[in-house]
Amino acid sequence: MSTNKQVIIIGAGFAGLKAARTLANKSVDVLLVDRNNYHTFTPLLYQVATCGLDPSSVAYPIRHIFKNAPNVRFLMGDVQAIDTDEQNVVIQTNANGTITETYDYLFIAAGSKVNYFGNESIQNNSFALRDLNDSITLRNHILRLFEKAAWTEDDTLRESLMTFVVVGGGPTGLETAGALYELYNNVLDAEYDKNDNMQANVILLEAMDDLLAPYPENLRDSAKKQLQSIGVDVRTGAFVEEVGTDFVKLNDSTVINTHTVVWSAGVQGNTLAEMLNIELERGNQIPIKETMEVIGLENVFAAGDIAYLIEPKTGKPYPGMIPVAQQQGTLAAKNILHDMNGESYETFSYFDRGIMATIGRRRAVAWVFNKIPVTGFLAWIAWLGLHLLVLMGMRNRAQVFLNWVWNYLFYSRSVKIIFEGEKRKPETVKTSEPETA
Amino acid sequence: MSTNKQVIIIGAGFAGLKAARTLANKSVDVLLVDRNNYHTFTPLLYQVATCGLDPSSVAYPIRHIFKNAPNVRFLMGDVQAIDTDEQNVVIQTNANGTITETYDYLFIAAGSKVNYFGNESIQNNSFALRDLNDSITLRNHILRLFEKAAWTEDDTLRESLMTFVVVGGGPTGLETAGALYELYNNVLDAEYDKNDNMQANVILLEAMDDLLAPYPENLRDSAKKQLQSIGVDVRTGAFVEEVGTDFVKLNDSTVINTHTVVWSAGVQGNTLAEMLNIELERGNQIPIKETMEVIGLENVFAAGDIAYLIEPKTGKPYPGMIPVAQQQGTLAAKNILHDMNGESYETFSYFDRGIMATIGRRRAVAWVFNKIPVTGFLAWIAWLGLHLLVLMGMRNRAQVFLNWVWNYLFYSRSVKIIFEGEKRKPETVKTSEPETA
Repeated sequence: MSTNKQVIIIGAGFAGLKAARTLANKSVDVLLVDRNNYHTFTPLLYQVATCGLDPSSVAYPIRHIFKNAPNVRFLMGDVQAIDTDEQNVVIQTNANGTITETYDYLFIAAGSKVNYFGNESIQNNSFALRDLNDSITLRNHILRLFEKAAWTEDDTLRESLMTFVVVGGGPTGLETAGALYELYNNVLDAEYDKNDNMQANVILLEAMDDLLAPYPENLRDSAKKQLQSIGVDVRTGAFVEEVGTDFVKLNDSTVINTHTVVWSAGVQGNTLAEMLNIELERGNQIPIKETMEVIGLENVFAAGDIAYLIEPKTGKPYPGMIPVAQQQGTLAAKNILHDMNGESYETFSYFDRGIMATIGRRRAVAWVFNKIPVTGFLAWIAWLGLHLLVLMGMRNRAQVFLNWVWNYLFYSRSVKIIFEGEKRKPETVKTSEPETA
Repeated sequence: MSTNKQVIIIGAGFAGLKAARTLANKSVDVLLVDRNNYHTFTPLLYQVATCGLDPSSVAYPIRHIFKNAPNVRFLMGDVQAIDTDEQNVVIQTNANGTITETYDYLFIAAGSKVNYFGNESIQNNSFALRDLNDSITLRNHILRLFEKAAWTEDDTLRESLMTFVVVGGGPTGLETAGALYELYNNVLDAEYDKNDNMQANVILLEAMDDLLAPYPENLRDSAKKQLQSIGVDVRTGAFVEEVGTDFVKLNDSTVINTHTVVWSAGVQGNTLAEMLNIELERGNQIPIKETMEVIGLENVFAAGDIAYLIEPKTGKPYPGMIPVAQQQGTLAAKNILHDMNGESYETFSYFDRGIMATIGRRRAVAWVFNKIPVTGFLAWIAWLGLHLLVLMGMRNRAQVFLNWVWNYLFYSRSVKIIFEGEKRKPETVKTSEPETA
């Protein structure tokens, strides 16, 4: 047995991965726990959902990252309980039953989940874009609607099948709306609409008066104009009251007939935060100090989307963005090492490189270092380059680059397959063949 | 309404696709029916199952192929009934309910299904490799077993988890066994086995005395030696009697402890053949004439794996191979056109380019034009080149090439993710987050 102290890291997202990499090949035992055996590059999930990329292009196998780090173990499973007195974590696994592991230090980086603000109709009838399964579920749904619309004689039904609503004027909402519109107009049009009677309609709803609330005004305006110029119906000040299987209703009683509502209007801390028996911040987030320590607990750190920390400069909580999660994850791991070595903690200092969002082919907005606004083609090139750089793994980069070039040159989308994936019950393999009874 | 005659093609496999392409942009209405919205390049399914390729690399969207052919319509669905008196087909669709379409000509190219020879234990407990869902089901299963083995203290259990059995000494069996062995030894070893206590074992079982029965003797021997040289345990004359969830039993009472039995020991005609109310040949196949007409039916043609036709040269049925299906599909479509034009039918003349099988990295056997035997590196290069050429779509070719080069250079496998795919019930999207109850 190793006499090293054990650090348990919950979550292999951007914060957890940076922490595990910081601790790799140090004199410490690391147990990295995640529900999936891969890390997900979430900013490109909307491209998987809109047929542009393969799932594996935005997923990177966790064990591969740590294959040369003997001190990092990986366990695939869901955390079921955390006992901060006994310092242990109970993990429910698919393959190995329930495993309990004790920690000397715990780092919680379990991320966020969708916030439906208590509205069950939205929760039950909308599509999310939070993980790889979400993106395939949405992709299959969209393609099935096109199959249905192509065989529908009923004009009203066809129109509702071809109406796609995205809720949320943040980068994800913008990018999804733009990609959906182009998916039809550049790609699926020629394949489904041989009789010229199909017409796709993409509506972007935002409850506030502006898209991209944290951006400066000229960028907000530019984003709206660019979206409108490609044909997206942008409606601000539109508050969703109810979502059904074939409609969305706004609080001004407007009803939009649609079978597809993509909900990207809010996130909150992962449910796992509630296992800690401490008072959480609004949005289910864990309050942390500038050292990444969880307030009120010993040897427990948290960071990223699940953590709540006020940014001194703005007086607001740090936003749920990848660079924040990455920099916080690195700091948490450093402070764990500092503690083991009897050194004093470092505090968080955020290096802000700005924000950006793409709006379909050759269009984007960016706010470089939160100082320099860039729009249009230049911002789009910057977006592409940066995302290729940040994506993990050379094979994934090569594959994404190949698909981007392909899709750009040929106005194509590569992955237009309706593919359910795994057969859930191996014993029903036989029934995949049509049975005549 | 068009006054053209309507041809219904059942199945977008190799025979159906060739037929539809032959009829594209001719004065005829074509309805192409398939369960999936994509064509599957089946020879590479084993590479999807062993983490080498993405599903979309071996799947090609059917609508994309015919986007410039206004006379070809596509309908995604399962054929439920065929009425050869009324000349109609009933298609059960997911999106559009049940649709009945009448035909002037029917072309049945629904392919084959697995033959378990009436053994339910095999049917219930083995893995097939017949479609994309099969390949992902097997891939996830293999990766989950590795996750389990890495956390198992029990040496006996670990050994059975790491034992993979492939049944069937044809090209698919050989290729799967070779790829499975290399998956562990070249790739997963470093990622899972940090304590050097995992050891994968791949066993290939064949009931007959030789692998690759139709090949000449020196190729059969070479295939066996090449497999053994990379470490596969080849057992010929091994007849499977029973498969359980954690064992396979042979008829000489040998029991192998394993959680993975891949069954590639036989196929038979798709169940759809039984809808025709005619006497079928052994193996559930539809008897056809050399013109591809179904014997005993008017205006009905069949070809490929579902059809039974004796090859005059050999006195045996044509084998279930892609070139046979493609050439028969083209001929069936030509004869339908001939019939419409009052011309006489052509008869089938098979141009045989030979057979080949790859056996892992840099190893293969080929029998070019059924005359020239080639083994080893040269056969492997020929296999790679030919498969790239035959694969449909430049993007797929580029992507497969990229992954092959990558996997070869870095002894890697690109797609090591355990990914279930679509969430089956949209209303359970919320439960993807861990619940504390």
